[in-house]
Amino acid sequence: MKNQIIGMVGLGAMGGPIAANLVKAGFSVKVFDLSDDAVSKLTALGAGRASSAAEAARDANVVITMLPNGPHVESAVFGENGIVTTISTDALYIDMSTIQPQVTDSIATRLAEKNISMIDAPVGRQTQHAIEGKLLIMVGGSEDNFKRALPVLNFLGDTIYHCGDVGAGGRMKVVNNYMSIVLNQVTAEALVMAEAAGLDVSQSLEVMRGTVAGQGHMSTTYPSKVLKGDTEPGFMVDLANKDLGLALEMSASLGVPAFTGAVARQVYSLASREGFGRQDWTALYQYNRLCIQKAL
Amino acid sequence: MKNQIIGMVGLGAMGGPIAANLVKAGFSVKVFDLSDDAVSKLTALGAGRASSAAEAARDANVVITMLPNGPHVESAVFGENGIVTTISTDALYIDMSTIQPQVTDSIATRLAEKNISMIDAPVGRQTQHAIEGKLLIMVGGSEDNFKRALPVLNFLGDTIYHCGDVGAGGRMKVVNNYMSIVLNQVTAEALVMAEAAGLDVSQSLEVMRGTVAGQGHMSTTYPSKVLKGDTEPGFMVDLANKDLGLALEMSASLGVPAFTGAVARQVYSLASREGFGRQDWTALYQYNRLCIQKAL
Amino acid sequence: MKNQIIGMVGLGAMGGPIAANLVKAGFSVKVFDLSDDAVSKLTALGAGRASSAAEAARDANVVITMLPNGPHVESAVFGENGIVTTISTDALYIDMSTIQPQVTDSIATRLAEKNISMIDAPVGRQTQHAIEGKLLIMVGGSEDNFKRALPVLNFLGDTIYHCGDVGAGGRMKVVNNYMSIVLNQVTAEALVMAEAAGLDVSQSLEVMRGTVAGQGHMSTTYPSKVLKGDTEPGFMVDLANKDLGLALEMSASLGVPAFTGAVARQVYSLASREGFGRQDWTALYQYNRLCIQKAL
Amino acid sequence: MKNQIIGMVGLGAMGGPIAANLVKAGFSVKVFDLSDDAVSKLTALGAGRASSAAEAARDANVVITMLPNGPHVESAVFGENGIVTTISTDALYIDMSTIQPQVTDSIATRLAEKNISMIDAPVGRQTQHAIEGKLLIMVGGSEDNFKRALPVLNFLGDTIYHCGDVGAGGRMKVVNNYMSIVLNQVTAEALVMAEAAGLDVSQSLEVMRGTVAGQGHMSTTYPSKVLKGDTEPGFMVDLANKDLGLALEMSASLGVPAFTGAVARQVYSLASREGFGRQDWTALYQYNRLCIQKAL
Repeated sequence: MKNQIIGMVGLGAMGGPIAANLVKAGFSVKVFDLSDDAVSKLTALGAGRASSAAEAARDANVVITMLPNGPHVESAVFGENGIVTTISTDALYIDMSTIQPQVTDSIATRLAEKNISMIDAPVGRQTQHAIEGKLLIMVGGSEDNFKRALPVLNFLGDTIYHCGDVGAGGRMKVVNNYMSIVLNQVTAEALVMAEAAGLDVSQSLEVMRGTVAGQGHMSTTYPSKVLKGDTEPGFMVDLANKDLGLALEMSASLGVPAFTGAVARQVYSLASREGFGRQDWTALYQYNRLCIQKAL
Repeated sequence: MKNQIIGMVGLGAMGGPIAANLVKAGFSVKVFDLSDDAVSKLTALGAGRASSAAEAARDANVVITMLPNGPHVESAVFGENGIVTTISTDALYIDMSTIQPQVTDSIATRLAEKNISMIDAPVGRQTQHAIEGKLLIMVGGSEDNFKRALPVLNFLGDTIYHCGDVGAGGRMKVVNNYMSIVLNQVTAEALVMAEAAGLDVSQSLEVMRGTVAGQGHMSTTYPSKVLKGDTEPGFMVDLANKDLGLALEMSASLGVPAFTGAVARQVYSLASREGFGRQDWTALYQYNRLCIQKAL
Repeated sequence: MKNQIIGMVGLGAMGGPIAANLVKAGFSVKVFDLSDDAVSKLTALGAGRASSAAEAARDANVVITMLPNGPHVESAVFGENGIVTTISTDALYIDMSTIQPQVTDSIATRLAEKNISMIDAPVGRQTQHAIEGKLLIMVGGSEDNFKRALPVLNFLGDTIYHCGDVGAGGRMKVVNNYMSIVLNQVTAEALVMAEAAGLDVSQSLEVMRGTVAGQGHMSTTYPSKVLKGDTEPGFMVDLANKDLGLALEMSASLGVPAFTGAVARQVYSLASREGFGRQDWTALYQYNRLCIQKAL
Repeated sequence: MKNQIIGMVGLGAMGGPIAANLVKAGFSVKVFDLSDDAVSKLTALGAGRASSAAEAARDANVVITMLPNGPHVESAVFGENGIVTTISTDALYIDMSTIQPQVTDSIATRLAEKNISMIDAPVGRQTQHAIEGKLLIMVGGSEDNFKRALPVLNFLGDTIYHCGDVGAGGRMKVVNNYMSIVLNQVTAEALVMAEAAGLDVSQSLEVMRGTVAGQGHMSTTYPSKVLKGDTEPGFMVDLANKDLGLALEMSASLGVPAFTGAVARQVYSLASREGFGRQDWTALYQYNRLCIQKAL
């Protein structure tokens, strides 16, 4: 395994540590980046210097890209001196960048026409985890290609999910980030509301850490209720709607932002009219799912 | 302590178990409710029957209300045969209902004019916790009154917070519920997006439970970053904004609801323009706080 | 007709000019207000001074209230020395205040139990129009009561709509104000976007005044398309959705607010998934109507 | 003038009629489209058939593209057999497509490096107007190039705005469409609310057509108030905020969508806290402008 050759394109905040870990793991690694500095750091560790993406890919068993966005990846693969000009049909191409899933689909389709295998494997967590080889990796690709990639990915992350076909890794990352990024705003709104209402922010945090507010629904209410098909009300949609109304009145009179709550209230009210009012509040999930259950 | 007399008004889903626990604890409890059935259940346990709120309050050391909304509480206190007509100035009045904090303020002010002490003590958690005496109780009132209430409240809940002056209990509850109720919609959006994107919902939950998405910011990013005044970017506002843009494109093309994300994106973009773009994503909290930092 | 007696309660920015016009019209007007100054201005014009709402209503053929909000109206009618204590069952009570329609319903119901007739008649436009007797008046009440009110209202406004039963006047006003008040924010967003994009604001206004953007849909697209049942696309929902996406990208990169557009985009996307994508953009109205067409 | 040669690329719903009008006007027109049918329709009218974008552009004084989106335009200009391979540096290139303004900027920059002049000239209104030569045309480009384009554009539209430098035409169109497309949702919400509240929709339309609700702010309140710097209240921000609150309560209890209103309310509340509460409601525009007035 370790006598495998890996071509690595993109040596930024995440790509650099990833390449370093692969060198340490004993792979023969050839690296390419537009920044000479970035390349030099890796050659100092024992990597080989490639003069282009094409050179990095030549003779490699595995080719990895870790680049800022879709056009960069498309250019590294299909552009001048791109990967596609040298990569072997026996090799596996792994894109670890975070890009639009539809661009991933399009790249994979074009590569498949040339009999080149691809998986996408974007990562979660932060630079420190990349350095420690403890990334969260979300992989999209065939079962076979996933298995081929594992001996490499195992040196990069400690939590690796096979999420489906190529493109599924990116989709999982988008969903995960949607949740955490929006949650950031909801959290900010709640804490600002607390402060404006004269509450102690530290105590507010302590209170909420002891309830669904701070712990989230995914480990608490959802598994025990709606995901089991149980919508007997522990706390009704209509009561949640009423309490949200109280909160919006309070935030309006305080003049603090409650944007996410304002639109959430709309959904609760529509759900109530649609007949979900006396079900458990987690049935709001079922209401939101209606749009994908309808025949189109 | 236990030879104290407690008047209890409101014997619904929460008030009933609360009264029962007080009887079991050995207090002398007089109960009133519009429903004879509800009263009879309690008298069967040893409570005394009161014919009105006024009767429940007569001679009581502590008077508790647990009623559906503000007008009910106002009526029980100030209406015909209301608590105020009989309650002793030595007694403590505890409102455990969830009502608009401004109504609590107004009731407390009117009672103070009559030298009657009041705290508000709305509860978190659900009926089962009320039955087991394991409620979360958020108390607003003076230090003295809080201490007077504790020997009673300790039979009702296992987590009791003193949140500030009278009205602060309700404010804390409103903030806590805002967070959990809005979070419900965010969670639903993320899971519907996952499903529409062809991902396995169970696996999506598993992935997110391992990240901030499922664990929330209150126990993870906020304490280690923005709340410590550290906004060195682990993950930048601008990158979060970009990723949220990817998610909104994906949700738009899938035709699934992403209402909370759509408005959150606006805030990220405005925060970026305001100069927060290269700070840690948790600095979004600081951006939201601007509205309460400005002199008016 | 002009030998009729009118009791008028509430002499503020709108009530004052209204009372003045009634005096000028030759009615015998008795006025009451908490502000002596306000009353004196009217008595100087020839009105009689009443010492309470009850006194204003005594012997009156028509009793009018024009007060800031629901509790004020309830108190003027049912409170101490309230209208209800003196008003004749032959009289007509007209509430011209802007209050929650549900409060209007409740007042009307309580009055009906005492055989007292009521209409609600909130007004549009501004103080200057009140002075000139050129208000827009939206009336809710029975046909009979509407006709009884007209000889009075005709001195106050030049555009009078009979909108339905009692409460309908207020509902019409709420809908009208919803539209104009939200439109204010949409307009602000568009003009700020123009400015941030380097366009001349005056020219932007000129361009938009020549299109649906500035003229609105109510006099242009809706009557010629969706309201006639014609959803053959002049401009498709899907194209509008795409253009809105372009605008949101532009506003995000400029860092300017586009809150209303962000949520509108969600609705377009959901409408598209629901099958409206290739219909005329005005069919968005039909999509929004779905919620009231479903059996519950 | 009319002995000029025009190359036209893109003969769809808008491009077809435009080309036809140019033929009728007496220009020598060479057309290219991927659809042979579309080309044949034009050659039947007297246009010349070009085998590629490059052929259409060869020897032309003016080259026009009217294509579905940015990548199409980029490909027509810079792709294989693209316009750039044959266009004369004496010619003027006019892109009439509706695309992302940033893509327009990028195309213009690349063309300028080759000394090729460009304007963007997207159109408003619909197919019928294209046929009649009565389009609204929003032009971005230098004064010189605008003047060079006018003799051609005058055969296509009856309202032509010079909006600024190249890219400004597209920006104006994006802003205009933002306004009309969002307004569509606001209109739908107001009419659905009216219907759900039991009002007659036709009458509601009639009422609103007589007020700012139906007429919009651009021809009514803005020019007479905020745009003149007059924010003396005709109708205060705080009152608008209160009325919007009434409308949101009504819509919540009716269970009808009020998404745009929900977020607009947030902005009103924040504006009020920021000190705009007692100014004229049009001062909301000034509040929204704050984000572009701050130093960054």
